[in-house]
Amino acid sequence: LRDERSIVERLRRSASIPAGSAIILGIGDDCAIYRPRGSADDMLFTSDLIVEGVHFLRGSHKPADLGRKALTRSLSDIAAMGGTPRFCQMALCVPPWAGARWVDAFLDGIVQLAAATGAVLAGGDLSQGDKLVCDVTVGGTVPRGTALRRDGARPGNHIYTSGWLGGSALGLETGRGRAWKRHLKPEARLALGEFLRKELRATSAIDLSDGLSQDLNRLCLASGVGAEITEPPAFAGATREQALHGGEDYELLFTVRRHAKVPAYFRELPLTRIGSIVNHDPGSSGAEVRLNGRLLPPNGYVRFFTISGAPMP
Amino acid sequence: LRDERSIVERLRRSASIPAGSAIILGIGDDCAIYRPRGSADDMLFTSDLIVEGVHFLRGSHKPADLGRKALTRSLSDIAAMGGTPRFCQMALCVPPWAGARWVDAFLDGIVQLAAATGAVLAGGDLSQGDKLVCDVTVGGTVPRGTALRRDGARPGNHIYTSGWLGGSALGLETGRGRAWKRHLKPEARLALGEFLRKELRATSAIDLSDGLSQDLNRLCLASGVGAEITEPPAFAGATREQALHGGEDYELLFTVRRHAKVPAYFRELPLTRIGSIVNHDPGSSGAEVRLNGRLLPPNGYVRFFTISGAPMP
Repeated sequence: LRDERSIVERLRRSASIPAGSAIILGIGDDCAIYRPRGSADDMLFTSDLIVEGVHFLRGSHKPADLGRKALTRSLSDIAAMGGTPRFCQMALCVPPWAGARWVDAFLDGIVQLAAATGAVLAGGDLSQGDKLVCDVTVGGTVPRGTALRRDGARPGNHIYTSGWLGGSALGLETGRGRAWKRHLKPEARLALGEFLRKELRATSAIDLSDGLSQDLNRLCLASGVGAEITEPPAFAGATREQALHGGEDYELLFTVRRHAKVPAYFRELPLTRIGSIVNHDPGSSGAEVRLNGRLLPPNGYVRFFTISGAPMP
Repeated sequence: LRDERSIVERLRRSASIPAGSAIILGIGDDCAIYRPRGSADDMLFTSDLIVEGVHFLRGSHKPADLGRKALTRSLSDIAAMGGTPRFCQMALCVPPWAGARWVDAFLDGIVQLAAATGAVLAGGDLSQGDKLVCDVTVGGTVPRGTALRRDGARPGNHIYTSGWLGGSALGLETGRGRAWKRHLKPEARLALGEFLRKELRATSAIDLSDGLSQDLNRLCLASGVGAEITEPPAFAGATREQALHGGEDYELLFTVRRHAKVPAYFRELPLTRIGSIVNHDPGSSGAEVRLNGRLLPPNGYVRFFTISGAPMP
């Protein structure tokens, strides 16, 4: 099997953006950015796939929760760039085991979250197939030129995360309690993303979909910097490993200028400083993050690999 | 299994567009239309899925042809609305049988067509899975308010189709010759779509993805009209049934005002008048098309069913 990193690298190289394109950011961030002619807004686009047997098992999620999660993954990418969701499209492959009631509940999960977040369901495609596959594309907006990106972190910036980490990984392991609920019903931090863009003027951001060690490494590679962190805030009961490497928390990791006044909480959600951006270490050969002074390799939860979430060469 | 029409109907009802949304056309046409704040352009979005075992069989297509076709399906929706493609995103589920060389060739097929048509590859998502599934989303533009839609046909309009119909269905049956090539390498009629919008000012258009009888019926239902046609131009060797009902030709079906001057050819492509739009027949109960005076039921090639291609109730 062609490994996923090499696919992404191949696409990055071959799909270069021609001069004059209205795509001002392509493969390599949470969303692509498109600049409509004459508009006050930039548009953000992201596409996320869930595949039965890879991202979930038949029966592991209630159908409405699964539909909700399929959309949440894309909404989280919009949140990471400070965007406001505007619409979504859904491509769905329905397997024989999914009866009418199951499919209706799955669709209700998507449609209800779409309505609640402003991501109007505006099309898609349906097919039958052996396994359930669902791809959700979300379009969102930011005022022109204001999208939070991965490549804006600068040495001296402070690094923050929202929430508590490792809950989804803990839930996947134990299958019960608050952590399991966390795994089943993650939330896209849309209001926080807008706050980071408008109020805090964060210098960079990324959503924690594949684990802190993985996603912070991506942010550092995109920005050409390193990071020094201490232990992140762990979800109640989560191990240190789960907090550092567990995926699917969908919290936001962001950087701010040194003197930025970051509140302890955004609404109910703690914002915790976990370290600082430092100069890139030329000897680090790709691993850019140090935890308490020791290299922290990107061991994130990479069952899948988004093109937009690709580490750069 | 929930049947696909009922899924689409459920989504149409539940996913209504709220007041103030920038989505000015949702489920029910080839593309959704989004109007960016202050822009001179409207944006078009469409998403099309190919699934192994449903839309193709392992080994039926060379990988580059399959990648090309995956993108062509979405480009054809952009063409049908007179749009110019601007970018695409691809969600790909890679099965174990697809080795590195196969995947590279598949991606090359997409990337080369993307580059040739201006649909810059700007992100997506990758996963592993049992069967190959590929969803391609394309974003395109038209000058504000000028998109060709399905709902603009009016009684007295003349009905035209481009090209010759039934070639893809013939190729699927015989597996050889020009018809097979036609099935393997369909083309999105992008230049024709722009010509219909800018020069001919067509009143409505749709792409022939699911067969003339099916797609003309959709256009009639969307416009609230009926149609009277004669035999359409058949691909060399195709049967009457294939020309009337065969899918995947990706020609454009369009209507123009009675006095519009439609050339016999657009570049190499014949434009053939096949009939006229008439008033809706209240007794027709859904089937709106007459061929030589007799009802032509929509027997199109519906192996799959696009949300945007949904017949209305």
